[in-house]
Amino acid sequence: MIVVMKQGASEEEVRHVSRRVESLGLKAHVIVGTERTVIAAIGEKRETDKEAMENCPGVSEVMPILAPFKVASREVKDETTVVTAGSLSVGGRRVGVIAGPCSVENEEQLVSTAKAVKAAGATALRGGAFKPRTSPYSFQGLKEEGLKILSTAREETGLAIVTEVVAPDDVSLVARYADVLQIGARNMQNYRLLEAVGGCGRAVLLKRGPSATMDELLLAAEYILNEGNPNVMLCERGIRTFESHTRFTLPLASVAYLHAKTHLPVVVDPSHGTGHSYLVPQMACASVAAGADGLIIEVHPNPEEALSDGYQSLSFTQFEETIQLCRKVAVALDREL
Amino acid sequence: MIVVMKQGASEEEVRHVSRRVESLGLKAHVIVGTERTVIAAIGEKRETDKEAMENCPGVSEVMPILAPFKVASREVKDETTVVTAGSLSVGGRRVGVIAGPCSVENEEQLVSTAKAVKAAGATALRGGAFKPRTSPYSFQGLKEEGLKILSTAREETGLAIVTEVVAPDDVSLVARYADVLQIGARNMQNYRLLEAVGGCGRAVLLKRGPSATMDELLLAAEYILNEGNPNVMLCERGIRTFESHTRFTLPLASVAYLHAKTHLPVVVDPSHGTGHSYLVPQMACASVAAGADGLIIEVHPNPEEALSDGYQSLSFTQFEETIQLCRKVAVALDREL
Amino acid sequence: MIVVMKQGASEEEVRHVSRRVESLGLKAHVIVGTERTVIAAIGEKRETDKEAMENCPGVSEVMPILAPFKVASREVKDETTVVTAGSLSVGGRRVGVIAGPCSVENEEQLVSTAKAVKAAGATALRGGAFKPRTSPYSFQGLKEEGLKILSTAREETGLAIVTEVVAPDDVSLVARYADVLQIGARNMQNYRLLEAVGGCGRAVLLKRGPSATMDELLLAAEYILNEGNPNVMLCERGIRTFESHTRFTLPLASVAYLHAKTHLPVVVDPSHGTGHSYLVPQMACASVAAGADGLIIEVHPNPEEALSDGYQSLSFTQFEETIQLCRKVAVALDREL
Amino acid sequence: MIVVMKQGASEEEVRHVSRRVESLGLKAHVIVGTERTVIAAIGEKRETDKEAMENCPGVSEVMPILAPFKVASREVKDETTVVTAGSLSVGGRRVGVIAGPCSVENEEQLVSTAKAVKAAGATALRGGAFKPRTSPYSFQGLKEEGLKILSTAREETGLAIVTEVVAPDDVSLVARYADVLQIGARNMQNYRLLEAVGGCGRAVLLKRGPSATMDELLLAAEYILNEGNPNVMLCERGIRTFESHTRFTLPLASVAYLHAKTHLPVVVDPSHGTGHSYLVPQMACASVAAGADGLIIEVHPNPEEALSDGYQSLSFTQFEETIQLCRKVAVALDREL
Repeated sequence: MIVVMKQGASEEEVRHVSRRVESLGLKAHVIVGTERTVIAAIGEKRETDKEAMENCPGVSEVMPILAPFKVASREVKDETTVVTAGSLSVGGRRVGVIAGPCSVENEEQLVSTAKAVKAAGATALRGGAFKPRTSPYSFQGLKEEGLKILSTAREETGLAIVTEVVAPDDVSLVARYADVLQIGARNMQNYRLLEAVGGCGRAVLLKRGPSATMDELLLAAEYILNEGNPNVMLCERGIRTFESHTRFTLPLASVAYLHAKTHLPVVVDPSHGTGHSYLVPQMACASVAAGADGLIIEVHPNPEEALSDGYQSLSFTQFEETIQLCRKVAVALDREL
Repeated sequence: MIVVMKQGASEEEVRHVSRRVESLGLKAHVIVGTERTVIAAIGEKRETDKEAMENCPGVSEVMPILAPFKVASREVKDETTVVTAGSLSVGGRRVGVIAGPCSVENEEQLVSTAKAVKAAGATALRGGAFKPRTSPYSFQGLKEEGLKILSTAREETGLAIVTEVVAPDDVSLVARYADVLQIGARNMQNYRLLEAVGGCGRAVLLKRGPSATMDELLLAAEYILNEGNPNVMLCERGIRTFESHTRFTLPLASVAYLHAKTHLPVVVDPSHGTGHSYLVPQMACASVAAGADGLIIEVHPNPEEALSDGYQSLSFTQFEETIQLCRKVAVALDREL
Repeated sequence: MIVVMKQGASEEEVRHVSRRVESLGLKAHVIVGTERTVIAAIGEKRETDKEAMENCPGVSEVMPILAPFKVASREVKDETTVVTAGSLSVGGRRVGVIAGPCSVENEEQLVSTAKAVKAAGATALRGGAFKPRTSPYSFQGLKEEGLKILSTAREETGLAIVTEVVAPDDVSLVARYADVLQIGARNMQNYRLLEAVGGCGRAVLLKRGPSATMDELLLAAEYILNEGNPNVMLCERGIRTFESHTRFTLPLASVAYLHAKTHLPVVVDPSHGTGHSYLVPQMACASVAAGADGLIIEVHPNPEEALSDGYQSLSFTQFEETIQLCRKVAVALDREL
Repeated sequence: MIVVMKQGASEEEVRHVSRRVESLGLKAHVIVGTERTVIAAIGEKRETDKEAMENCPGVSEVMPILAPFKVASREVKDETTVVTAGSLSVGGRRVGVIAGPCSVENEEQLVSTAKAVKAAGATALRGGAFKPRTSPYSFQGLKEEGLKILSTAREETGLAIVTEVVAPDDVSLVARYADVLQIGARNMQNYRLLEAVGGCGRAVLLKRGPSATMDELLLAAEYILNEGNPNVMLCERGIRTFESHTRFTLPLASVAYLHAKTHLPVVVDPSHGTGHSYLVPQMACASVAAGADGLIIEVHPNPEEALSDGYQSLSFTQFEETIQLCRKVAVALDREL
C-alpha cells in the first residue's frame, strides 16, 4: 500500500503514519517527493482494513497496490481452469453453450426446448426452478417440481443442468438435481450462500452483480474457492449504467480483463446483457469474438407467452441461427462450438 | 400498459397484439396516430409479465403505466408511516438518529460509543455483529457474542439496537437481541431474507442496493410488507456511479421522490454514501434539509484503528459537532432532532 | 405523446390537459383506465417542448411516443448510407479501418505509421493536429503543421485522412487538408461546430459523448444532416460508468441498436473504448462480430513514448495481428476487411 | 507517480522503467516489496503524458500522485475566491441566488420574472439567449434580441445578468450585455470557448459536464484561469447515472469535496440536477446545507407554457417559498441569504 500525505504534512504526522504501518506488521518506507511525501508499506498482507489509515492526521489518500483476491488470481495459478460438469465443459478450446428458458414452466415446454437447443449445439440446459423476482407479484418458479422436470429433461437429452439456487437451505436440494448451481446477480454478495455452494460438490456459475466491480466479483469467487470448490465459472451479464435502450450494458472488455487477472473461465449472458431478443444474436457473436469461454442464452418455445423474460428470449429458430453465426466466429478464431 | 407499434405495422399485427392483451384479461383500446398505432390496455393488473409482448411481431415498445408496487404506495395509504422501536421513532416530526460503529469489536468500544452518541443526541445504536464483507479475508464480525454486547449497551443506555441480519436462518437469533433488523445493501434483493424479516415481529431498516432503482427498492419493501410487517424504514445509502472521489454517490433527491411515492419513512446514511469522514457532516446536514426522516451514521472511538469502515467513521467529537449542525437545520425547518 | 394523470386526478384537470394538448395543434384522446386516466395526443410533431405539460395540475408523467430524430431515422430511409471519402468506404460489405496515432508528432512518425497501417489493411489514416486535451498542460497538437504532415502522408500512401476539428472557425482550414472531419466526444453537443461541419462538403465522423444517450447522438447527427451533409458516420467510443478497470465502457450492443434505428453507418473505437492496449485486439474482433461498419484504432511506432494516448495505442506488430484476427471474423460473417 | 510492476517483472524491465522515468527528468526510486516492485518517480511535473509508461514491458499499473490541476488548487491559494459581478457575490458568507427562466422568451416574461425573483431574494437574473438544444427542432433562443431584453431587465431591477455563451465568436457580443458568462454543461470541455471566456473580462459560471470527473472540471477551470481570468464559479448541476426518476443525479458531496480541493466557489443547480419542479425546493435547501456558495434556479411565470425546461421551472410562488426555506437553513448555519 502507498500512503500519500497531504502537501505540508508535518514530520510528526509522517512519523505517526509510519508507526501505524509498522504496528500492522509492515515495513514503512518513506519517500520525500518535491511536493508530497509518500509512505510505501512493504510486506503487505490482505487481511487488514488499511484504508482506515485515511483518517490519520495529514493523510491525503491510501492506495492499495496488491489486488485483494488471491486464490482466483492468475498469478497464483497460470493455466486456465477448465470446469466440467456432465455434458458441459467451459474453459477449453470449445465454447460451452448453456441455453434454455428463464423459468421452467412445465415438462413439455422444458423438454421441447432441451431437444431444440441440443440439436442446435447447446452443451447444457438452463432453466429456473427457484426464481428470484423483483416483484412479489411475479411468477416465483415451480421450485422442487421444476427441479424434477429439469432432471427429466437431462434424462431425455443428456444435457447437463444449470439452475439457480437462492438460499443456503436449498443448496443440498438443488445439488441433488443439478450439475451446475447458478448464483444469480442479485445474490453475488450473499456470502452465506457463496459459502454454502462452496461446499456442495457441484460446479458453480457465479453471475456478476449489476454494480459489482471486478474486484468484488473475484472476491465473491474467492468465497467459493476458499471452501474448497475449484469449479467456478464467472458470468458477465451486464452492468447498470445510464443507457436505457438496453436493460443492462454488456461490457465485453470484461472478458479480456478477467482472462488477464484470473484463471477462472468466463461465460457471457447476452440475454440479460441486452434485454431485447433482437440484440442477442450480434452480442452472442461479439462475446465469442471477445474470447468468452461460454455463452448462456435464454430460449423459449414461444417467447411472447413466456412467464418471465419473454422480451429477451430467442425462439428455437432464432437460437439455431445465432449458434450458426457464433460457430463461424469461433472456428475463424481457431476454436470450436 | 401502452403497446407502441412500429411504423407501418400491419393490421394483422395490431389485431394480434389486441388479442394478446385481451387474453390477459384486459381491454385493448386501439389508437391510430398519424405516424404510429398504440394500443392501451385497460384493467391492468400487476401480476403478469407483460413485457414479453415486446416480442410480438410489429411491436416497437411496451410502456407500463402503473407503478409495480402497491402496499408501499402513498396512493394506498396517504399518511406517512411512523416506525417506532424502543427509543427510536422514524417518520414523525423528530429526526431519528442511529449511530455507532460499523462492527461491534468489544464491550468497551461499544458501550463507550453508545454513551457518547446518546449524549450527543442519537436515538438508537447501530453496530454490526454479522458483517457481510467484500473479502473473505476481512473481519467478519463477532456474531452472537456481538449481539450480546449490543444488548449490554442497550441496558446501559436505553438505546434501541439496530443490527444487520444476513441469512434467513439467523433472523430469529438476531430478533431476540435487536430492536431493528437491518437488511444491508448487498441483500436488498435477497428475497428469502426479506420474507424472513417480514415475519420476525421487529422493525426493519431496508438499505437500497447500490444499483437498485426506486421501483426495485419499493418492491423489496413490498416483500416485507406482504408478510404482514408494516414497520419498514427505507434507507438511501448511495449508488454506484462513475464518481470516484466518493465511494458511492449519495442522491438526496431520492428522499423527496420517495416521500411523493410511498408512505414509508426514509433514512439517509451519509457514511456509506460518501465513504470519507470529512464529507459526512455536510451531507448529514443536507440529508436533514432534504427532508430525511432519520440518519444513520458510523461513529468509532478511534476511527483510524477501526476493524472496518474506519475511513468513513466519525470520532465522538466529530459526531457531536455534526449533530449540533443537523439540529440547527432541523429546527430551522420546523422539525426536531 | 401519452400524458398519464395521477390517480384521482379531477375531471377539470383532465379537461385542462386536453385543452393544452389541443392548443399545441394535436388531437386529445382520453382513455379512462381502472386506476388512472391517460390522454393520448394524436398528430404529434417533434417541434414542441411537450414535457412542460408535466407541470399541469394532476399530471403524473409525460411519455413521448415518437423518436425525436427524423432525417437520421431508418423509418425515413431504409437502406444503410454508405459514406465514401477517398480510400475509405464505410457502410458496405467491407469493414472500413481507420488507424494511426492519437497525435501527429512529426513527419517520420506519421508517414511510417501510415505505411505500416496501410500494409496491414487500414483504409484510412487518423491523426490529430488540433488536440482537445483535458489538461491545459498537455501537448495540444501541431495544428496547421500537423495538417500538412497528414497531407504528405496521404500523398505517400493514398490513404484518406481523418482528423479532428474543434472549433467552427477551423472547419474550412481542416477541410482543405482532410477527407473526413472528426467531431470528438467532448464536442458531440457543440452545436455551432456541428452546423459548421454540416456545410463543409466533407464526410464527418461523429463520436458519441461519454454520457450521451442514443437519442442525443442521433439528434447531434441530425444537426449535421439538416445542413445538407448526408455523409455522417456515427462512432461508438465508450461511455462513462462505474467500471474503473477500463477507461470507458464499450457497449457493443449500441451497434445493433443503431442499425435498427438509423441508416447511418457505425464505426467502433476500441482504443478509447477500453483505454488499454492489451484489451484492444479482442474488442476490435468483438466490434466486427457485433456488426460494426468500421473500426478506428490508435497505432504508434513506439507507444510507450507517444505524446498522447500511449497507454491505448498498438504497436505496428500488434495492429497487424489485430487486423488479421478481425479479418477472420469478418470473412466468417460474410464480410470483407 | 508510482509505477507498479507486475509480479515477477524482470530486473531488466525494472531498469527500463527507471530509465524511462529519468528520461522525463524525474528521479526513479525503486522499492522492492514482498510481492511486487514499485518505482516512485520524484520531482513530478504535470506536463508529461506519463501513463504511456503503462505500455512498458513488465508494468502493471501507473498511479498518479499529484492532482493534475494547479492554479485552481487550494494548496496554491488557501482562501476561498469571492466572485463579484454587479449585484451578485458568490464565495462569501451570503449565498448568491441566480434565478430566472431557461430561455428569454419576450420582454414581459423576463422583466416580470426579474421583478419577482428579486423580490423573493435573488441576487442575479439568469436567462438564455443562445440556447444549445439537444434537438435542432427545439426553440434555439432569441440570440442578440434576447441579450437586449436581459439588459432591459437589469436596468429595471439592478440584477446582474448571467447568460450562456456557446461559441468563441459570440464571446465579445455576450460580454457586452452580460455580467457573468455561463459555460453550459455540454461545452465544459470546449477548450477554445474556455480560452475565449478566459480573456473576456467577465466572471464565468462553469457548469460541470454530466459525465465529467472532478479533475476534468477543475482542469476546465484551469483553462480559464490560465488566460488570466480569476473569476470562475464552478457549478454542480448533476451527473448521468442509471437513476431515471430524476433527469440527472445531483451529488451534493461534490460541494464539500470541491471546497477541500479548490478555492473556487461552488454554485448548485437543483433545477437541472433533478429535472422535476416538485423536487427543487428540497434540493435547494439541501444544497445550502451542504455548503453551496450559490444557487441557480429556473423560474418561469407559467411553467406549463415555457418554451424550454418547463418541467423543472418553479412558478413565482414556488420560488418564493423555496427561498424562504433556504434562508432558514442558511441562517441556522450562520450564513445569509
